[in-house]
Amino acid sequence: MQKKITKKKIIVKDKKNSVGERAILLHKKLQGKISITPKAILKNFADLSLYYTPGVGAVSSFVAKHKDKTNEYTGRGNMVAVVSDGSAVLGLGNIGPEGALPVMEGKAMIFKSLAGIDAMPIVLSTQNTDEIVAAVKAIAPSFGGINLEDIAAPRCFEIEARLKRELTIPVMHDDQHGTAIVVLAGLINAFKVVKKNIHKGKVVIVGAGAAGHAIADLLLLYGIGELLVVDRKGIIGLHRDDLDSHKHMLATLTNPKKKKGDVATALTGADAVIGVSGPGIIDPSFISLMDKMPIVFALANPIPEIMPEEARRAGAYVIATGRSDFPNQINNSLVFPALFRAMLDKKIPQFKNELFVKVAIALAQVVENKNTENIIPSMFDKKVYEAVYNAVS
Amino acid sequence: MQKKITKKKIIVKDKKNSVGERAILLHKKLQGKISITPKAILKNFADLSLYYTPGVGAVSSFVAKHKDKTNEYTGRGNMVAVVSDGSAVLGLGNIGPEGALPVMEGKAMIFKSLAGIDAMPIVLSTQNTDEIVAAVKAIAPSFGGINLEDIAAPRCFEIEARLKRELTIPVMHDDQHGTAIVVLAGLINAFKVVKKNIHKGKVVIVGAGAAGHAIADLLLLYGIGELLVVDRKGIIGLHRDDLDSHKHMLATLTNPKKKKGDVATALTGADAVIGVSGPGIIDPSFISLMDKMPIVFALANPIPEIMPEEARRAGAYVIATGRSDFPNQINNSLVFPALFRAMLDKKIPQFKNELFVKVAIALAQVVENKNTENIIPSMFDKKVYEAVYNAVS
Repeated sequence: MQKKITKKKIIVKDKKNSVGERAILLHKKLQGKISITPKAILKNFADLSLYYTPGVGAVSSFVAKHKDKTNEYTGRGNMVAVVSDGSAVLGLGNIGPEGALPVMEGKAMIFKSLAGIDAMPIVLSTQNTDEIVAAVKAIAPSFGGINLEDIAAPRCFEIEARLKRELTIPVMHDDQHGTAIVVLAGLINAFKVVKKNIHKGKVVIVGAGAAGHAIADLLLLYGIGELLVVDRKGIIGLHRDDLDSHKHMLATLTNPKKKKGDVATALTGADAVIGVSGPGIIDPSFISLMDKMPIVFALANPIPEIMPEEARRAGAYVIATGRSDFPNQINNSLVFPALFRAMLDKKIPQFKNELFVKVAIALAQVVENKNTENIIPSMFDKKVYEAVYNAVS
Repeated sequence: MQKKITKKKIIVKDKKNSVGERAILLHKKLQGKISITPKAILKNFADLSLYYTPGVGAVSSFVAKHKDKTNEYTGRGNMVAVVSDGSAVLGLGNIGPEGALPVMEGKAMIFKSLAGIDAMPIVLSTQNTDEIVAAVKAIAPSFGGINLEDIAAPRCFEIEARLKRELTIPVMHDDQHGTAIVVLAGLINAFKVVKKNIHKGKVVIVGAGAAGHAIADLLLLYGIGELLVVDRKGIIGLHRDDLDSHKHMLATLTNPKKKKGDVATALTGADAVIGVSGPGIIDPSFISLMDKMPIVFALANPIPEIMPEEARRAGAYVIATGRSDFPNQINNSLVFPALFRAMLDKKIPQFKNELFVKVAIALAQVVENKNTENIIPSMFDKKVYEAVYNAVS
């Protein structure tokens, strides 16, 4: 695959007051994007005797005896940890916990702004699976839910699976499932726009990382006609002898026609392509190999697999990216705030793929006048929050 | 020691609206005492592009390249974890992480109210030393300091020592050092009130848990005439063959006259006793064995080793407790907020006992008109904050 593609050098214009430069200045000014504040003011010993000793002793004794009431007498029921090991931060890769922290703080801002959830950034000094699982388990009694974030594949699969099994609070790796839910929602609407039956559609996922796997799982559960997943070495199938256990599972579940080859081969005759890989991976020439009215989701961020205008020129009919400066933004923020809010409020013990499909369908239905530039709702549309929240049961 | 003491049954009056009952109602109403809030409002995509993607990508890249600037571009420099395994919560003992959570939330309230520090309660699902050390190390990149709290001895010593050695941020077990600092400050003033030279004074610590050890360390460093520590089995000394490594160290550093015996023996001729053990451990008859103008710190909370009025009747001259409803409250809150504030502001890498002594001396000096009922300042006295803050350098 890599040999066949001539990666274009993409120059991002960096004018004096670019978004990045303004963001850096703003972050320096704020020194962090969240603060932890008391819910009441402590002004004298009478206050202290109720919120702290000696009064708190009665609360502690009560909660210790009635552990199931902890969320009623503490903030735990509204507290979510946003946990990252910094190994797959945005499109920047393995930049470590320090680099991950501004992203986790941003996520905490969104949790509170959109869903009233107290979210605490927790960035880790380890990238070892066992150590991450142990650390999250150790701190779990402080939280009502765990949002895993920006953890590289395949480590993220085992970490999430083990934590879901071993903890009694909801755990979700948002890069996987948040993305997958919005992709499925967008795809449902995109197929409606091109007037094709998604259940007979042929869809290709380019990229077999965290998001690629989760999208594949969700599309399979929803029922897609034919699904192919392509990684750096080509179409994933049982003919490959270089697959790890996760990719081997994909090989058994996808590629029913046992195809072999590169991205171009995979895209030949496809109805939709979902790029979750890296800049420039989808060449314009590949678009012309697709079926009529091609659907192109180029989700690499900030630089997509193919820029929207290029995709359009090459014949793409419905185009989505991960960016807010183009139409149809596939953005996790559409889902995770209301999703966690609903899990906490409705005391649902764990996330399931069936739930994610329900949420995707509800999210797709929010879009009223579906057209090529309107398959995904805005995250500031209040109907989004309601739809996601109500889909959880 | 236990055989000799007839523990009096102490009845705490529990009227309908007791502090405990009011605290329970208040906690249920608030559902937690802290919240995590954004420092700016997210109202549209322009905001989101600066605080979150794509703008945050530039911040993350910058911080990843300049890790020493992380505290300038994130909230880490003002963020302290308040960590407990729930093994020694207040005077309630090993009640677990759930019961510890209301206390840690209360501590977080105080951190913010008195020192503007963002403090996050982290209660742990493990009470294993190695696991606690591993968990705190794992989450450390999210914090500018670690306040260990309500962790039982002797585990707390190893946990603190290892974390101090292995982390590059300040780590302090407040039950040890916060208490020890305030005790030393109170003792300095109490010796002035009774017009005795503390450096020639004979002091007995009853209780060899976390606080007892730390008080002994600090008094030795400050220079006390003669120091004895008594545990459940009597005076600690090299004659004992039942000592763990921590108590053995105490045996080598204290008890210069190689005394053996119980609390009564230890107190005979003593100038001061510091109780950090449990209710009723100091019998009034012991007070009469002490030197003239006895100093009695009965710090078990909420029920002291001896109630102040009993101690007074038995001849005690200066009395301190851990309670806010008697004069001379020995309260950690006098120290930890300004101490952590100063460590963070002044970028001091680690706590040291020499620093704690300096803080204790400064705290003692805040009290202007020293008398039997005024050896410790109020935590709401602004001079306290300044004195502690300025003592850190």
